Amino acid sequence: MLYERALERLKSKGLNLDINSFLRTFNRISSIGWVESYGSTRLALTNEHIMARRELLKELENIGAKVLFDEAGNIIAEVGSGSRAIAIGSHLDSVPGGGRFDGVFGIIAGLEILRAIVKSSLRLKHKLILVDFNNEEGSRWNPPLLGSALSVGVYTRDFVYSRLDSNGVTFGEALERSGFKSSAENNLSMNPPRFYIEPHIEQGPELYREGYDIGIPQGIVGLRVLELTFKGRQDHASSHISLRRDSVVGLSKAVLRLREYALKNQDKLRITVGYISVDPGKFNVVPALSKITVDIRSYDSQVIDEATKYTIKVAENIGGEENLSVDYRELWTIPRIVFDPEVTSIIEESCRDLGFKCKRMWSWAGHDAQNMSRITKTAMIFVPSVEGISHSKDEYTREEDLVKGLILLAEVVLRLDEI
Amino acid sequence: MLYERALERLKSKGLNLDINSFLRTFNRISSIGWVESYGSTRLALTNEHIMARRELLKELENIGAKVLFDEAGNIIAEVGSGSRAIAIGSHLDSVPGGGRFDGVFGIIAGLEILRAIVKSSLRLKHKLILVDFNNEEGSRWNPPLLGSALSVGVYTRDFVYSRLDSNGVTFGEALERSGFKSSAENNLSMNPPRFYIEPHIEQGPELYREGYDIGIPQGIVGLRVLELTFKGRQDHASSHISLRRDSVVGLSKAVLRLREYALKNQDKLRITVGYISVDPGKFNVVPALSKITVDIRSYDSQVIDEATKYTIKVAENIGGEENLSVDYRELWTIPRIVFDPEVTSIIEESCRDLGFKCKRMWSWAGHDAQNMSRITKTAMIFVPSVEGISHSKDEYTREEDLVKGLILLAEVVLRLDEI
Repeated sequence: MLYERALERLKSKGLNLDINSFLRTFNRISSIGWVESYGSTRLALTNEHIMARRELLKELENIGAKVLFDEAGNIIAEVGSGSRAIAIGSHLDSVPGGGRFDGVFGIIAGLEILRAIVKSSLRLKHKLILVDFNNEEGSRWNPPLLGSALSVGVYTRDFVYSRLDSNGVTFGEALERSGFKSSAENNLSMNPPRFYIEPHIEQGPELYREGYDIGIPQGIVGLRVLELTFKGRQDHASSHISLRRDSVVGLSKAVLRLREYALKNQDKLRITVGYISVDPGKFNVVPALSKITVDIRSYDSQVIDEATKYTIKVAENIGGEENLSVDYRELWTIPRIVFDPEVTSIIEESCRDLGFKCKRMWSWAGHDAQNMSRITKTAMIFVPSVEGISHSKDEYTREEDLVKGLILLAEVVLRLDEI
Repeated sequence: MLYERALERLKSKGLNLDINSFLRTFNRISSIGWVESYGSTRLALTNEHIMARRELLKELENIGAKVLFDEAGNIIAEVGSGSRAIAIGSHLDSVPGGGRFDGVFGIIAGLEILRAIVKSSLRLKHKLILVDFNNEEGSRWNPPLLGSALSVGVYTRDFVYSRLDSNGVTFGEALERSGFKSSAENNLSMNPPRFYIEPHIEQGPELYREGYDIGIPQGIVGLRVLELTFKGRQDHASSHISLRRDSVVGLSKAVLRLREYALKNQDKLRITVGYISVDPGKFNVVPALSKITVDIRSYDSQVIDEATKYTIKVAENIGGEENLSVDYRELWTIPRIVFDPEVTSIIEESCRDLGFKCKRMWSWAGHDAQNMSRITKTAMIFVPSVEGISHSKDEYTREEDLVKGLILLAEVVLRLDEI
């Protein structure tokens, strides 16, 4: 097997990883909320999410971990007895119709390291902590990363508890009912771990396509979301085509030009039009108003600024061509996060020693690691994702890649423990 | 003035039309529900619509017309004493933010003819009827033309009364409350008029652009509405652009190709994309599913069939280019209506005699005339609409064109009376 030598190396340090236990647990917990034709649906604090968390709690009980909840309903499990902690974290919630790997891989890998340390009776200098963050995806309550944000103090308790889901249920109400709520004294900001590592699938195709075993994100890209509005003239479906001021033509041109620009610059940029609305939206009326969102991501803030300018210029050009008035506003901008260089170097050295081919890269998606980086030395470990498909039932990572991620995580924990 | 000679001609036949009265009444009633920045809003049986109808009823009372309501709440007013009737009709309801001319012009022109005949003490062989149809636009209760459809027997009373508005109010409830409801014995199908004429603005730019005074529709174009669905792959906004299967790119290409096709064929065709939905519609998710409606209109059913085939081919081509699966279904098809050739010829001769430049054409929009053509000899008279803007606050018809329409209507009534 491709990772046998690496496994032997860990064994020689006194750590026995049980690969079968890891895969079995992963398959069992990742199948909760799974529907073959649609994918995984475990929205935060729904039955499916709570079932998956209960399975995790049973596993943690079996290995004798000490389990706490914090103010956001994050699960914090602890083994060992050092005064400071190394934390591993991820999440069990999913988007609607998401994949089996996003989030679950990190949780089960962390669980397996805790189990191996307990079973191997390995005495580390640090405590080892596993964090299962609540509402990472933001599919039930916006914004995403709500659990980590409250635990590290990015948002206030009032803000987080008052978030509404699409049925008008607040995060606070659902948390109270779930039984996962506890007090602020357990928040990660009250007693920050010394290190935080988040293992995750790449959610991009680079590692898979280029044949790497492991990706080491230098940080998380910055994000800006714009809203563009094309305003034409409401008109009857009987009106002459050449006299129309059709806002739908404006939005369609914008989508195609932004796609072309993003394709040309995809080494440094992503652009997504995920939301569209047309008003009045009747089959027999030429819509007066069309709105789209434009999600722009890059590791380079200058590239985001250039793409913003380009987007506005494209919109204005289309306004001129189609006799539409154009409006735009910035919905929000989140600056990029850079991870701890010391920890990322340790991950890189560990890969070399284990014989895993690794690549420094950027995370194009947001992760709880960006909140954790505010209170501790933080890094991530990426495993390949076939064709980069994510937030989709077709998301897939090969077993051997999951196992390599697990082995690397163990090696990194042992090395961090020695610092 | 451009119509002085025509007015004299009517006078010589014993009919005195009061142009000032016509314009005053038109301006007064068309301003009900008007907001400068938004346009006219008189949804069927709302306060604004009811206010406009009450003003009409006052005018009808002043001239001593006999007024009935039918089962659909259509207002039917009658002057004269012949055994058979010539009917003029239109509507006072509007779309939200519509124009001042659509519907109101026909009602006030008809009212003015009734008034002139009474005031001029002209004894005609036919009774003269004015019909104010209820819920023509369909903006409050779908489908449009509901009032005429019930009165001529296209729909059943149960179907019409059970239509729901967006607040869950049925047509039947609102009609009961409005006081305009009466029994089926007054329905137009029970005692059909011998002729039906509907004066209306063109809702297209042909007459205005080509310098005609009057348009004579040969009929109402046919209509087919298709729904296209592009199915791609839901993906994260972090995913590589070149690997996406983005349904929004599919819909955008379809909009632009259909627009190009419609532009090339606009002498015989209209295509409108008025409705768009994307799923899941989140800023940070590449939408898996995009749906659009395609409204195809032509006076030639073969052209509609060709455009349908072209639309499906375009969708399938885009599916191939963008690796999307494509689905389509026909929502509905309404065949074209041809008006009575005898009556349209009388309108054409009347124009010639009055010195009005007229053009045979098609109506690209639906009108109550299409229901009336099932029970009587039906035709329409169009007046020019500046740039063809309609269902919009910018809808505009010049006073002299309104007056020419009124004069022609009077001349046509006098001629039909002699048949």
